[in-house]
Amino acid sequence: MNAPLDAAQDALTIARRQAEVVAALRHVVPEHCVMYREEEVRPYECDGLSLFRELPMVVVLPETESQVQEILRLCKRLQVPVVARGAGTGLSGGAMPHAGGVLLGMAKFNQIRRLDARTCTAVVQPGVRNLAISEAAAPYNLYYAPDPSSQIACSIGGNVAENSGGVHCLKYGLTVHNVLRVRMVTMDGDIAELGSEALDAPGLDLLAVFIGSEGMLGVVTEVTVKLVPKPALAQVIMASFDHVETAADAVAGIIAAGIIPAGLEMMDKRATAIVEPFVQAGYDLDAAAILLCESDGTPETVAAEIARMTDVFERSGATRIQVSASEAERLRFWAGRKNAFPAAGRASPDYYCMDGTIPRRQVGRVLLAIQEMEVRYDMRCANVFHAGDGNLHPLILFDANDPDSVRRAEDFGAEILELCVQVGGTVTGEHGVGIEKINQMCVQFTREELDAFHAVKHAFDPGGLLNPNKVIPTLARCAEYGRMHVHAGELRFPELPRF
Amino acid sequence: MNAPLDAAQDALTIARRQAEVVAALRHVVPEHCVMYREEEVRPYECDGLSLFRELPMVVVLPETESQVQEILRLCKRLQVPVVARGAGTGLSGGAMPHAGGVLLGMAKFNQIRRLDARTCTAVVQPGVRNLAISEAAAPYNLYYAPDPSSQIACSIGGNVAENSGGVHCLKYGLTVHNVLRVRMVTMDGDIAELGSEALDAPGLDLLAVFIGSEGMLGVVTEVTVKLVPKPALAQVIMASFDHVETAADAVAGIIAAGIIPAGLEMMDKRATAIVEPFVQAGYDLDAAAILLCESDGTPETVAAEIARMTDVFERSGATRIQVSASEAERLRFWAGRKNAFPAAGRASPDYYCMDGTIPRRQVGRVLLAIQEMEVRYDMRCANVFHAGDGNLHPLILFDANDPDSVRRAEDFGAEILELCVQVGGTVTGEHGVGIEKINQMCVQFTREELDAFHAVKHAFDPGGLLNPNKVIPTLARCAEYGRMHVHAGELRFPELPRF
Repeated sequence: MNAPLDAAQDALTIARRQAEVVAALRHVVPEHCVMYREEEVRPYECDGLSLFRELPMVVVLPETESQVQEILRLCKRLQVPVVARGAGTGLSGGAMPHAGGVLLGMAKFNQIRRLDARTCTAVVQPGVRNLAISEAAAPYNLYYAPDPSSQIACSIGGNVAENSGGVHCLKYGLTVHNVLRVRMVTMDGDIAELGSEALDAPGLDLLAVFIGSEGMLGVVTEVTVKLVPKPALAQVIMASFDHVETAADAVAGIIAAGIIPAGLEMMDKRATAIVEPFVQAGYDLDAAAILLCESDGTPETVAAEIARMTDVFERSGATRIQVSASEAERLRFWAGRKNAFPAAGRASPDYYCMDGTIPRRQVGRVLLAIQEMEVRYDMRCANVFHAGDGNLHPLILFDANDPDSVRRAEDFGAEILELCVQVGGTVTGEHGVGIEKINQMCVQFTREELDAFHAVKHAFDPGGLLNPNKVIPTLARCAEYGRMHVHAGELRFPELPRF
Repeated sequence: MNAPLDAAQDALTIARRQAEVVAALRHVVPEHCVMYREEEVRPYECDGLSLFRELPMVVVLPETESQVQEILRLCKRLQVPVVARGAGTGLSGGAMPHAGGVLLGMAKFNQIRRLDARTCTAVVQPGVRNLAISEAAAPYNLYYAPDPSSQIACSIGGNVAENSGGVHCLKYGLTVHNVLRVRMVTMDGDIAELGSEALDAPGLDLLAVFIGSEGMLGVVTEVTVKLVPKPALAQVIMASFDHVETAADAVAGIIAAGIIPAGLEMMDKRATAIVEPFVQAGYDLDAAAILLCESDGTPETVAAEIARMTDVFERSGATRIQVSASEAERLRFWAGRKNAFPAAGRASPDYYCMDGTIPRRQVGRVLLAIQEMEVRYDMRCANVFHAGDGNLHPLILFDANDPDSVRRAEDFGAEILELCVQVGGTVTGEHGVGIEKINQMCVQFTREELDAFHAVKHAFDPGGLLNPNKVIPTLARCAEYGRMHVHAGELRFPELPRF
């Protein structure tokens, strides 16, 4: 075989295919909406998970819903894979392009169609930024509750695809709890509306299955969101603990007392040590872990709730407790938490942000196991996380220029995620599966459960054209991953104990 | 054709089929678990919607999960339809048997497997009664929040099938918000676990699509529920209004103020007039509508919230406001609401309880339209409903011995449900679709949306053996229903405006 000849042949085939798709697209959208030159498509090569990159064959930026319908019909007819993209801030590669596919950018769908303060709802296009909804609602003293850290940039369409969360999701819910209705285009080019403004919808709950489906089931063209009133007051408690297990017990104590804080975050000693020099938040650097616990509402309810929270922390053995005395102090307490990622970037050449979720009662155990792994992998890991809902964000510090360091960071990360599954948790909290965690899905689910995912995916997109090779692993891939993990003659996957 | 001969031939065919299925079932479950004689299967002929009755061919009451697996494998092999049944309290015929099928009763799955007060969770079998969970959790000061009126009898498996609600669901959510994990058997006899104890699960949210799927996707064998702490105090406000629209505006005002009451119920004048002689709750019989609005929590938060609620009601023009001064008075205020159905049974020979949901802003408009329909159909309708979440329960009073009265009641009910769709609501709130509302599903959804339902159903149960001919209408059925409703040369369905 002549390898260079083969490569040339492949390039020719791709170029012909590209020309065919570009020509077809120009029949259904204006010429300026179709891009295919390398310099045009390069900006779309990855999302927030820049470790994985791929140039799309074509990028198309439709301007109307009927253009989206036409594009999907055309791609179905030509059997071209389609990857939809919002703002590209996703952290698991959900919007990474397909080399032989169309990257469908929804950035031009950026209008807030309706904002109704009386019913506390807004109807928005998918390209509208998360924060822009709250900004538009501010004059009515309302806001959109889910607040991923990327909220200044990320789009509501992407939030729907990933079922995004944020610091407030413990009290106010994930995207799925704050979206009432989604209008979407199927791979056949048909329109369907899922959900309703009423509390429950008849038939199967396809809205819930659609939210978090990472672009595998259809393309969102309109979203009706719920708006909630801005609380009159918010205060945050900063509490220090001598042991991570004690801090974890305090978290369980808050929930067991029937308190749902507006935010309940934990940072371990490694994290505060990294963050404090960067932001001077006033964190207790002697503590093994600190908790940030927020109450919001009317002044009366906040006062009562702060008193109850303080009581739980005291009984749980907090060594220091401080309540924010002003809005400026509250923001300063949060500043460290919100800047933990950039601070990690200053403390280490690179960091790998993991995202797993565990039952709250396992928090102490998992943190101790991570400490043991730090020794074993000879790497540092800072833990910053949404303690109230058990969503861990371990930040593994590594050096991308050292291949051994990269390998150890990847193994370390995989071991953390698989421990999450072992203790009854999941391999993703709010960042999605995308391409990053597709192997861990083999650990998380049984063959029958993966079959059910494939069947539902097939129900919406029998040709498998929407965001292919992501989120749901094939059984072949799981078998391959399983084989990769035979250690000392013992098959570690896919049979892990569940408890 | 000789009709009696045909009938005899049919009976013989059914008897042979029955003998075949009974013999096969006896291979996989003990003999006492299989019933087929008329006197044995008669008790299963209907659920709470007794208007529709059918004798099942066979009733089987398995005792273990592996028996459920064997039964489903066997039914798949023999192509026998399967209808699963909990306590049979459903109101839309979801558990009505199939004449040629197996009725799979889950009553023997009645164990609470684990109750963990620290994590606020319980693992229960599907036949456990809703109230039994709260009773078991009471020593730990916890309870299971969803409280359908039938909670003394209904089973958690049935609650999962119907996504049941209750008075508290405005604040505490529906079944889907209070169930963390479901273990189920597919029609292939495989086990799958949907959901997890973590806040979010990776992959498609099949737990949400399963909850409320009315027995069409699989058979539940174990449910992990969330328990919540019992509030220290609850108080209820009873507020009177001169017009139903003013009462509806007050409901919107409560929500717009950011208050989520523990319950927010409305009764119109017709309803209070029926209920008061029956329970002496002390209702204001001069009011066009009364609201019952509950606050629960710590004494401090309840005091603050009751003050805010009172303020909203005063500004909305309430003509009388009374706050329960004791637990006895609180229960007396609720007694009328909770006994509205039996009271309707005393005021009229029969009543038909509807269940539709509308956006809150449409409550006043829909109540006025129902008043207009009362005149047009010459029938009385009492309105008792979950105002906070827009879930109407109009009680149409009729006489089942008068065929004209029955016909008018049915038409009246259908017109109410279709009005719910027209104003942006849905044809069911918490009672499910079952067989009762299958025609209205044609009004609610487009052809593409029904296609999506069928595709997902097919993904789980390609042979269509689980609870057939319910919930999702075929397009042929919709076409037929559409034809039934041509009035004055004008096709009323399926094109209704949506707004």
